[in-house]
Amino acid sequence: MTPARESGRVHIHEVVTRDGFQMERVFVPTEHKIELIDQLSSTGVAKIEVTSFTSPKAIPSLADAEAVMRGIRREPGVVYAALVPNVRGCERALACEVDEINLVMSASESHNQANLRMSRAQSIAQFAPIVQTARGSRAVINASLSTAFGCPFEGALPETTILEMVEQFAALGIPRVTLCDTVGMANPQQVERLCREVSSRWPDLEVTAHFHNTRGMGLANVLAALQAGIIRFDASLGGLGGCPYAPGASGNICTEDLVHMLGEMGYATGVDLSALIEAARALPELVGHAVPGYVLKAGPSSRVHPLPEHSK
Amino acid sequence: MTPARESGRVHIHEVVTRDGFQMERVFVPTEHKIELIDQLSSTGVAKIEVTSFTSPKAIPSLADAEAVMRGIRREPGVVYAALVPNVRGCERALACEVDEINLVMSASESHNQANLRMSRAQSIAQFAPIVQTARGSRAVINASLSTAFGCPFEGALPETTILEMVEQFAALGIPRVTLCDTVGMANPQQVERLCREVSSRWPDLEVTAHFHNTRGMGLANVLAALQAGIIRFDASLGGLGGCPYAPGASGNICTEDLVHMLGEMGYATGVDLSALIEAARALPELVGHAVPGYVLKAGPSSRVHPLPEHSK
Repeated sequence: MTPARESGRVHIHEVVTRDGFQMERVFVPTEHKIELIDQLSSTGVAKIEVTSFTSPKAIPSLADAEAVMRGIRREPGVVYAALVPNVRGCERALACEVDEINLVMSASESHNQANLRMSRAQSIAQFAPIVQTARGSRAVINASLSTAFGCPFEGALPETTILEMVEQFAALGIPRVTLCDTVGMANPQQVERLCREVSSRWPDLEVTAHFHNTRGMGLANVLAALQAGIIRFDASLGGLGGCPYAPGASGNICTEDLVHMLGEMGYATGVDLSALIEAARALPELVGHAVPGYVLKAGPSSRVHPLPEHSK
Repeated sequence: MTPARESGRVHIHEVVTRDGFQMERVFVPTEHKIELIDQLSSTGVAKIEVTSFTSPKAIPSLADAEAVMRGIRREPGVVYAALVPNVRGCERALACEVDEINLVMSASESHNQANLRMSRAQSIAQFAPIVQTARGSRAVINASLSTAFGCPFEGALPETTILEMVEQFAALGIPRVTLCDTVGMANPQQVERLCREVSSRWPDLEVTAHFHNTRGMGLANVLAALQAGIIRFDASLGGLGGCPYAPGASGNICTEDLVHMLGEMGYATGVDLSALIEAARALPELVGHAVPGYVLKAGPSSRVHPLPEHSK
């Protein structure tokens, strides 16, 4: 069906402790974050976005970035990433020996202003010294482009805008880019086209797709991205996450639902679905509410049910 | 991207008042059913599965089949279908001048026994006299094949089993077949393969795909079916429906989510999304609980949000 299916692994990037918890009202205690990340490290995911080295005032729920980053067990082969908003954050992240520094900005001016309180030009200007600071460290830079498939304030964006932003990342020598559907506006047609375009223009760039299930299209968009050759996906355990500017919306695509679909389709992810479901079971208690994931409720397709009494 | 995109319309079949309400504990009053169907008739859907002419004892929530079928307004161009379990049901349906008689049986022996309390051979044997009874009437026969993508009791089924069942339908002269993923076990890989196989073996057969979103793959499966040339889809307003033998599971794919995705992708469905969302708004009160659809909560992708205060 797609290149990845014949040739290798689809890489699952777990973002629940950063992208998921960032949105929660409750502060998940540091030891529980560490416990969850250690559990996720054993499932076979390729990357974990552990936390964000931002100001504790900006995101109180991730105020324990150092403690979490230093407290977790490092599973060989797993990339431990952290979001970094500026040089100060980069220094903090490097001091904790993160494997990947995730920079973030929006493709649309209004969302960048709303989310980061600066212009896109200012964001790009901030990226350069961070890249410089990380040079020579173990940390690789990834740039996440929010609203790459549409902006909640501006609507659809011209594809050229996205390509120009990726070009600017490439010019800074950034080797990894994540195309983010921040508010779940992407559709499979658009995903396939944009992913093909980015992959063919920058064949050496490691491209990750980051989808939300806001309008139920999350896994359909994964399918479209796979067909365009994308083999790296962000996902959040239980489907936690969301965007504060899209009220009522559901969150990130759900890791266990994604791994389940890929497994059923014959893709190798290296992830143990049962272990992932086991980890997801703890979430409702940790965050204080039910989570949107499906497989947690319905079980995998392979689950066989007992016959009803009248049929026995 | 697919044949349908260039050449024409994707047909939306609304099943909420049969497949959706059948599962509900409450009896939706006849006049509210009629009102909803009349509203749906105006949205541009191609077909509405109105009700089921089964024994009122078996499905009390659809005990008002005649009253509903006779009470609705007939929109020209819309096909009004009803489920029919036997010759008696067929006679009742014909007396109400249905446009389509929907027969149902399972691809797996155990699900057929559990759901219909007879063997597959008995089901097929019952189809023949129904087809005979309907001959010469306005009603066209559609055969729905449950568990076509997997059985909750037996797991995956060999593709040959499905093909043999379709062959039996074709041998009876049945011109329309619906492949049903009754408990949401289908994955896009399997969907594309089976749909291609059925369409190429029986090019004159009108094939409909019927997916559930039990494991979050509903719209991904639609995408795969589209790519295999399928242009007819069952869906349920609000995502109502489900299967009593898969507890905790979510229901049918949601009509407004489906129409929204297809519209965003550039497919013509002929359906007015706003009118559909408007109709869906009434559901929670009608059935007494929230419904699983996404677009009802998040709004369409084209919805633009106001800027937050600090960005103005």
